[in-house]
Amino acid sequence: MDKPLILVTNDDGIFAPGIKALVEVVKKIGTPIVVAPDKPQSGQGHAITITSPLRLKKVEQFEGVESYACSGTPVDCVKLAKNILLKDQTIDLCVSGVNHGSNAALNILYSGTMSAAMEASIEGINSIGFSLLDFSFEADFSAAMHYGEILISRLLKEKKEGILLNVNIPKLPISDIKGMKICTQGEGRWVEDYKESTDPRGGVYYWLDGNFEKGQYDDNTDLDALKNGYISIVPSQHDLTDYKNIKNLSYLEL
Amino acid sequence: MDKPLILVTNDDGIFAPGIKALVEVVKKIGTPIVVAPDKPQSGQGHAITITSPLRLKKVEQFEGVESYACSGTPVDCVKLAKNILLKDQTIDLCVSGVNHGSNAALNILYSGTMSAAMEASIEGINSIGFSLLDFSFEADFSAAMHYGEILISRLLKEKKEGILLNVNIPKLPISDIKGMKICTQGEGRWVEDYKESTDPRGGVYYWLDGNFEKGQYDDNTDLDALKNGYISIVPSQHDLTDYKNIKNLSYLEL
Repeated sequence: MDKPLILVTNDDGIFAPGIKALVEVVKKIGTPIVVAPDKPQSGQGHAITITSPLRLKKVEQFEGVESYACSGTPVDCVKLAKNILLKDQTIDLCVSGVNHGSNAALNILYSGTMSAAMEASIEGINSIGFSLLDFSFEADFSAAMHYGEILISRLLKEKKEGILLNVNIPKLPISDIKGMKICTQGEGRWVEDYKESTDPRGGVYYWLDGNFEKGQYDDNTDLDALKNGYISIVPSQHDLTDYKNIKNLSYLEL
Repeated sequence: MDKPLILVTNDDGIFAPGIKALVEVVKKIGTPIVVAPDKPQSGQGHAITITSPLRLKKVEQFEGVESYACSGTPVDCVKLAKNILLKDQTIDLCVSGVNHGSNAALNILYSGTMSAAMEASIEGINSIGFSLLDFSFEADFSAAMHYGEILISRLLKEKKEGILLNVNIPKLPISDIKGMKICTQGEGRWVEDYKESTDPRGGVYYWLDGNFEKGQYDDNTDLDALKNGYISIVPSQHDLTDYKNIKNLSYLEL
């Protein structure tokens, strides 16, 4: 049997340590093809490039792995891979990451890593986004790699359809990780605190800062699992309909 | 009683005709404050600006209305309005749009208009995104204005919490619109077709193009309502958990 074709992308850019770790894992399981941003694209969410052209540049970044640096967003990377580079091929899986920093809870909305994975899932490709709760360039990816390999292998073996997973790995030595848990998306949110400052010409500017605060009802969520030393796996999807409010709002009809 | 304070934003930029129409409506109902991008930001999704500073510039764009052009994305506009400009005030409602072009179905994910509305809703502010299915600069906003006024007034009157509405208006004369319907998010998706071309230096580039195709099971969805001459209202939310797959995927736990 042919080895599975696995698209690898991220949002920290093709030169980030996290994607290197992910490529190493994928090489053991299937044939990776890398299409990732040519520069960091954190916080790009589901942004796409529509008013300017996009470039793909073949690069020698990972030994023996076909790789392209893309001038666009993480979602652009997936669209170009699917529609240009792999137009006539079946992509068996898309993996995105390993992101530097948490994409648990609401962070999924802002995350380029998860938006790339979601874009693949919209295209009918099973997809996993991996994030490690460590922003350091010297972050230890060994737990992400160990558990990532198990997860990717299981998903490929089961051949279920329509799977999109948001996987977050706590910042812990691999021996301290208690396991992997299926969870729901946490309720925590960012409490923003813009830093206001003045540029050399006297103009005022603002720079986003803030703290992430855990929600009140976060049992069995990804935030809860991570706090307790587990890797969180949130099965995710792209239907944003608020079904519980459909009936309540019928008074708005005309 | 004080007039309600209503934050107005969009993704087509503060100079687009759509936001002008929306400001006119809001002026009849409450006190608008406008914080919108200083340039078009279509397709920005839930992108936020984290690696560079943001600017707010006071502008005289709408007569008698406090207005700011923001250098960031639509979501940045809402964050800055909430955390800087209106820090100590209660925002009674956020309206975003009127967008030029559809945000029905999956388009909600790519839409800066809806992401701005969603950001407000995350902050606990009821929010409505309006989109008109007409890209023209000379688009007729009269139906959007007429029905928008009804919707905004009803929402303010009912005082329910946690409401985020994705409202799309068909490109029809107001007399041909059959009414407003509460719907679910459609299944339609984009089928992409990148235009490949060569720049004056011989470099290859790609430009996103494509057609939106209605899904197979689109009864009672926004796509269905729009096709039948109704304004679609999809109550939306930001929990992306795929609850139906939570049990199916327990085999991934460790």
